Amino acid sequence: AEDGARDDLIALFEPLHAADIADVLEQVSATEREAIVALWGDEVDGEVFAEMDEDISVELMENLSDDIIGEAMRDLDTDDVVDLIEDMEEPQKERVLGSLEEADRAAVQQSLSYPEETAGRLMQRELVMAPTHWRVGDAIDEMRKSDDLPERFYDVVIVDPRLKPVGKVPLSSLMSHPRDTALTEIMDEEFRTIPVGQSQEDVAYAFNQYNMVSAPVVDEQDRLVGVITMDDAMEVLEEEAEEDIMLLAGVGDETLHDSTWNTTKLRFPWLAVNLVTSILASLVIAQFSSTIEAIVALAILMPIVASMGGNAGTQTLTVAVRALATKDLTPSNAWRVIRREMFVGLLNGCIFAVIIGIVGVIWFGTPMLGVVLGLAMIVNLLVAGLAGISVPIVLDKLGVDPALASSAFVTTVTDVVGFFVFLGLAGALLL
Amino acid sequence: AEDGARDDLIALFEPLHAADIADVLEQVSATEREAIVALWGDEVDGEVFAEMDEDISVELMENLSDDIIGEAMRDLDTDDVVDLIEDMEEPQKERVLGSLEEADRAAVQQSLSYPEETAGRLMQRELVMAPTHWRVGDAIDEMRKSDDLPERFYDVVIVDPRLKPVGKVPLSSLMSHPRDTALTEIMDEEFRTIPVGQSQEDVAYAFNQYNMVSAPVVDEQDRLVGVITMDDAMEVLEEEAEEDIMLLAGVGDETLHDSTWNTTKLRFPWLAVNLVTSILASLVIAQFSSTIEAIVALAILMPIVASMGGNAGTQTLTVAVRALATKDLTPSNAWRVIRREMFVGLLNGCIFAVIIGIVGVIWFGTPMLGVVLGLAMIVNLLVAGLAGISVPIVLDKLGVDPALASSAFVTTVTDVVGFFVFLGLAGALLL
Repeated sequence: AEDGARDDLIALFEPLHAADIADVLEQVSATEREAIVALWGDEVDGEVFAEMDEDISVELMENLSDDIIGEAMRDLDTDDVVDLIEDMEEPQKERVLGSLEEADRAAVQQSLSYPEETAGRLMQRELVMAPTHWRVGDAIDEMRKSDDLPERFYDVVIVDPRLKPVGKVPLSSLMSHPRDTALTEIMDEEFRTIPVGQSQEDVAYAFNQYNMVSAPVVDEQDRLVGVITMDDAMEVLEEEAEEDIMLLAGVGDETLHDSTWNTTKLRFPWLAVNLVTSILASLVIAQFSSTIEAIVALAILMPIVASMGGNAGTQTLTVAVRALATKDLTPSNAWRVIRREMFVGLLNGCIFAVIIGIVGVIWFGTPMLGVVLGLAMIVNLLVAGLAGISVPIVLDKLGVDPALASSAFVTTVTDVVGFFVFLGLAGALLL
Repeated sequence: AEDGARDDLIALFEPLHAADIADVLEQVSATEREAIVALWGDEVDGEVFAEMDEDISVELMENLSDDIIGEAMRDLDTDDVVDLIEDMEEPQKERVLGSLEEADRAAVQQSLSYPEETAGRLMQRELVMAPTHWRVGDAIDEMRKSDDLPERFYDVVIVDPRLKPVGKVPLSSLMSHPRDTALTEIMDEEFRTIPVGQSQEDVAYAFNQYNMVSAPVVDEQDRLVGVITMDDAMEVLEEEAEEDIMLLAGVGDETLHDSTWNTTKLRFPWLAVNLVTSILASLVIAQFSSTIEAIVALAILMPIVASMGGNAGTQTLTVAVRALATKDLTPSNAWRVIRREMFVGLLNGCIFAVIIGIVGVIWFGTPMLGVVLGLAMIVNLLVAGLAGISVPIVLDKLGVDPALASSAFVTTVTDVVGFFVFLGLAGALLL
């Protein structure tokens, strides 16, 4: 029965792409996942581990036999192996390294020696290079002879005798030129090399900005040490955008697969910050308790001004955070953008001042209450624009990820200013 | 002097990548931009237009001579031309189409006949195909002879006599096999074709999920009509993530280059929705004005419960919106995730209930006030979790982009429930 089940499983997975199998495995429970992979046995496809969420693949591999792990790792390029094992505990890491072939192990260890989130960790060691004196025919002959080519590659990197890249020839140019053409004649000299220590954000930015498909990675002596391909860059780019979305909402590095308890812990810090923020706002309100006691309508209306400020501030800071991430917002246009945001805040402030002023007068029949609401709205939306643009810029200058803390700062400002201006004006003009 | 300036400009731009020149032009004012491009004249690089923000390139091209536009368009693949002219007004569109060569014009017009945001608009017509009976040597010879190859390509698409793709051969396999190998022997049969009417989100998802570098596009009769490459998919993927971030913050399709007035108009609708929402919350508070009049401490503390609920709800909905976008959240795990979110809400609710309860007692010296705060916190964070996960799921089921409206719905719920439960409990337990 076991054998029958195994054949069924293999037949079921056969037509599926590794990424789809990984998705299926992510959706079932941890126990089911282990049972499925154990049943799969030595037919296991290593790509599936590479495609899975890292937490899950690390957990899963803890309980697999050395044989299955060895089998799985054999299918992978070194960059995928590095990606998998960099999050493992020491003993498990050793076990996986032990299952690799000698050359691959050395390559993986070399990659692991570079800091996390740098080009060194992203690159694969498998690449195709050629010396400067080769012709098209030499390169093609050599590739046909080699049995150790990367699974997929897009360029031949031309290197000088000291292994310094001097150009690269896309396979499509190699294809379209006669065998006796010198590689140096058709090589792209404007190619970009990536320093092995460059941050992964900068790598992803370069791939995206220059539409690159692959790029050679060089060490401090400018020697070729690996190559990064677009799929790796695409992953980083997605991670970065994802991180911004999550951080802006005060959600950390969580996935849908985290347990209830882990999720609770990950969400807690942001809520704690927000608690402090809102207590601060309450302290402001407390200063005006006698005003509120006199006119209870103020308690009813005060959340409107604060909430509008919070939303306007969030709009501005989201635009600012993304513009900083995509390098659209730079010191050269910062002043222009700050000025624009202040005007936008002022304009929307005036529009909403009129609307809310009318609402206030109709609702409570006190014209001066409408004036207070309107004035507070103008001030708070202006402040929201100013805080929304300047907080991320300042954090970025200080080297702090603006997505991380901006939202807390900005809503604190808009809450405090919103309550203070509204209640303060009310106290001055209505009592 | 004019000539000297022109030489200087050309020398300055010469070493720069088109994408970098585009960035420079985006940062200067519209008048400067036009002056620079006019000075550039017939040395203009069409790629620069393709790399610029579309609004800006369309505006810029309005004032250029036909010669310069014709010169610029000649450098571009058809997908880039389509990208540029799809946003133009009719007369300008005709002008640019008129500047193209016959064959390119037909290809561009064909692409424009497909709906916006579909594969048909993303694809380029330039591709390399081969009949099933060819061998490696035939393909290489043919490519060497051709003078009309795409600037960059990664695969040879194998087609049957009816032009239906039956497989594809990556250039790297073509390189590594002897000349007499049949293409059908080394072709990848598991390749994916993309229907010309497929939405660009689905195209981008497939490229990302399956790490594809290029994919053939087929029409309703399964005939090859074009090819989409990874850089186009990467752009869409980035756009989609960007759109989610922006929509979640209530910011529409705006850029840093929009005018103050345009930005104000784009931000207005979301603020208007928020105004209605917060007036709704005020109406709830108004029901309890006598309770607030009796105990002014309630006015001081009530924003805390509402604000914590809003933040917890935003955390959950952000995770949900992204999980829906990346297809991690599916009907098969929805119930599990909903359950988890409710438990997370309940757990954090209990933790913060204790904290805020203690704060309330210390601050105002009324133990029952602490109890009311704590209970309201538990209820509101539970409701926040439930609303945060179910609102996006329901919107997605209804075919509405969950990023668009979720945030307004969820914060309405947490504001209304937050004020209602806190003030209601206070009225029942404290008066």
